[in-house]
Amino acid sequence: MTTSFAPLQNDCFLRACLRQATDYTPLWLMRQAGRYLPEYKATRAKAGSFMGLATNVDYATEVTLQPLDRFPLDAAILFSDILTVPDAMGLGLSFAEGEGPRFAKAVRDEAAVAQLAVPDMDRLRYVFDAVTSIRRALNGRVPLIGFSGSPWTLACYMVEGKGSDDYRLVKSLMYSRPDLMHRILAVNADAVAQYLNAQIDAGAQAVMIFDSWGGVLADGAFQQFSLAYTRRVLAQLKRTGVDGQAVPRIVFTKGGGIWLADMKNLDCEVLGLDWTANLGQARAMVGDSKALQGNLDPNVLFAPPEAVAREARAVLDSFGKPHTDRGTTGPTHIFNLGHGISQHTPPEHVAALVETVHSYSRSLRLG
Amino acid sequence: MTTSFAPLQNDCFLRACLRQATDYTPLWLMRQAGRYLPEYKATRAKAGSFMGLATNVDYATEVTLQPLDRFPLDAAILFSDILTVPDAMGLGLSFAEGEGPRFAKAVRDEAAVAQLAVPDMDRLRYVFDAVTSIRRALNGRVPLIGFSGSPWTLACYMVEGKGSDDYRLVKSLMYSRPDLMHRILAVNADAVAQYLNAQIDAGAQAVMIFDSWGGVLADGAFQQFSLAYTRRVLAQLKRTGVDGQAVPRIVFTKGGGIWLADMKNLDCEVLGLDWTANLGQARAMVGDSKALQGNLDPNVLFAPPEAVAREARAVLDSFGKPHTDRGTTGPTHIFNLGHGISQHTPPEHVAALVETVHSYSRSLRLG
Repeated sequence: MTTSFAPLQNDCFLRACLRQATDYTPLWLMRQAGRYLPEYKATRAKAGSFMGLATNVDYATEVTLQPLDRFPLDAAILFSDILTVPDAMGLGLSFAEGEGPRFAKAVRDEAAVAQLAVPDMDRLRYVFDAVTSIRRALNGRVPLIGFSGSPWTLACYMVEGKGSDDYRLVKSLMYSRPDLMHRILAVNADAVAQYLNAQIDAGAQAVMIFDSWGGVLADGAFQQFSLAYTRRVLAQLKRTGVDGQAVPRIVFTKGGGIWLADMKNLDCEVLGLDWTANLGQARAMVGDSKALQGNLDPNVLFAPPEAVAREARAVLDSFGKPHTDRGTTGPTHIFNLGHGISQHTPPEHVAALVETVHSYSRSLRLG
Repeated sequence: MTTSFAPLQNDCFLRACLRQATDYTPLWLMRQAGRYLPEYKATRAKAGSFMGLATNVDYATEVTLQPLDRFPLDAAILFSDILTVPDAMGLGLSFAEGEGPRFAKAVRDEAAVAQLAVPDMDRLRYVFDAVTSIRRALNGRVPLIGFSGSPWTLACYMVEGKGSDDYRLVKSLMYSRPDLMHRILAVNADAVAQYLNAQIDAGAQAVMIFDSWGGVLADGAFQQFSLAYTRRVLAQLKRTGVDGQAVPRIVFTKGGGIWLADMKNLDCEVLGLDWTANLGQARAMVGDSKALQGNLDPNVLFAPPEAVAREARAVLDSFGKPHTDRGTTGPTHIFNLGHGISQHTPPEHVAALVETVHSYSRSLRLG
C-alpha cells in the first residue's frame, strides 16, 4: 500500500459531500465512463468482453479517465461492476452480448445459502489494484469514488441469476423463507463492508452504495430487507482514507424517495435521489443531516442542448441556493443524474449539461 | 340503453369508495380475470387472440365473471385493455404471443400528432356492449368497475409503439417538443373522458383511471404531463350512473406514492397506491378527502398461504381501523394488490388472501 498520492487540486465534490460551502455545484454522472463514448467502445473492443475490461487494471484506468478528458467533471468513479462481490463468492458472473449480467449459479435453496460466505478479498484484488492505479493516474485532478452494490441489490441478482422484470424469485424466497433471505443479506453486508474498506485502503476518497433495486420492495420489506443491511455495511466502514482525509459515504436507493424519512437517519454523509424526488422537499426533510446528490432524468439528455440546459437549471432551482458560509456546514447539492447515463446519449449534450451546471450554479450563489 | 339492472346485493365496495362505513374491508384484484385462472386460458384459447377475447361481448362477459365464481370478491372489473382508445384512433393495436401490446403506427412527429383526434365512440361500441352485458350477467351480485388508461400512459404506448424499458422515445419527444406532447395529451384526455362516460351510460358503477406509467416521470414533469391531464379527464366525468347512483372515480398512479401531496387534491373519490406506500402515512396525508385502495405486493401471492395471510394482515394493520360510524363519512380502505396479479399465481393462494382480508378486517373493526 502506498500513501504517496498527489495532492488534490479540485476538492469541490468532497467539500459538498461534507456539507461545506463551494463556489459552484459539483457534478459527476453515474456510469460516466460508458458506451455513449466512442473512446470507451474502442477500449471495450480491445478488452474483448466486459469482464475483460473490468478485470484489467490498465483498461479500467483508461476508461475511468476518458470522461474527465472530455468534460470538466468534479469526480471520477472506479470503472467496475456492482456484481463483483457475488462473483468472488463463486457464482460465476458473465455478460452475454446484448443482455445484462448473468450468474452461472443462482442461490435459491437452503443448501446454496448455507454455502455462502464472505469471499477472500484477494479474489477482488483486481478491483483494489484498479483503484490505486486510477488514483495515481488522476494525479490529484479530482477525487476518486469507490462503490459497491447494496446487500439487497446483490441478493436480487444472486437469487434471480440475472436481471428481472418482476423479481418473482427473490421475492418468493423473501416472503416464503425470510430466514434464508436474512442469511444471504448478512453475508452480503459483511462482504460489501470489507470490499469498500479495501477500496478505501487502496485509495478511494469517497464510497457509494448502489441500492439499485431497493425501490422494488414493499413498504416494510424495504426497511427490513434493504435498509437494515445498508446500515450494517455503513456501521463497518472506515471513516478516513490512506491520506488521513474523511471518506464520505453516499447511499443511493433507486425509487427510494418515498422512504426519505427512514433514510435521513442513516449514518452516511450523502443521499442520492432519482428524478421522481423533489430536491427542495427532500432538502427540507433531511434538514441538517445530509448532502443530497441527483437527480436529472437521464432521458433529458436526448433533447437538444437548450432543453438540457433548461432542465438542468430546473434541478438546480429545485434544490435552491446552497449555503455559502465557508465557516460552517449547511445544505449542499451534488449534481448527478437520477440513474446511469444511457448508451444512446450524444456526448455533446453532456458537454452542455456540465457547462450549464457549473455556470448556473455559480450565478445561483450570487443571487 | 337500458336502466333495468337488478338491484345491488353487495354494496360494500361502493360504500367504501364513498367513505361510508362497512362491516368488513372490500376486496378486488387488479387483473383478477386473467391468465392465472385455467378457465380464463380455456376461453382465451376459444377466442383465438387477446383482441378476439376483448372484442367479443360473450367472451368478455364470461371471463369477467370467472374470478367471482371462484372467490367472494366485492367488485367485478370490465375485461378489456387500457389501449382500446388509441386503437380506436386508428393506431392498430395487436398483441404478439409472448410479447406485450404493439401499435402498427407510432405517433412520433408533427404530422402524426396533427392527425390525432378523439375517435368516434362507435368504434368502441364493443366495450360499451360488454359493460351492459356484464352488468346484466352480474345480476346485482357486486358492482361493475369500468376503466381506461390515463392520458399519459396511453401517450407512452402511442409514442413508443409498444412497452419500453426506459421510455426514451416518449421522454425525448416530451423534453424536445413539449408542445406536441401537450397536444397528444389533450386529445387523449378528451377521448378518455368520453370513453368513461359511455361506460357509465352503459352500466359501469365505478370508473378507474390507470396511470400505469406516471411513475416513470420526473418530479415536475409528472404534475405537468400526467396529473394535469388526469385532472382534465376527471373534470368531464359524469357523477351518476344510469340508475341514478353516484359513480366513484378511482385514480391509480403506479409509483405515484411520492406525489401523494399533489394527488390528494384531485377531484376523485379514491386513490390507488402501490406497495411502496405506507397506508397509515397515506391515510394521515390524504386526511378527510379520499378513500384509499391497495396495496399488497402481488409477489406475496407466490408464498405459502400462511405467509399470504400474514402479509395481508400487515396491509390491513398498516391502514388501521377504518371508521365504523354509519351516520358519517370517514377513512375507508379498499383492499387490492399494488399492481396486476401475476399469471404465475396459484389460485388457491388467492383464496387464502380473500378469506384473510374478509375475516381479519371484520375482527379489526371490533378491536
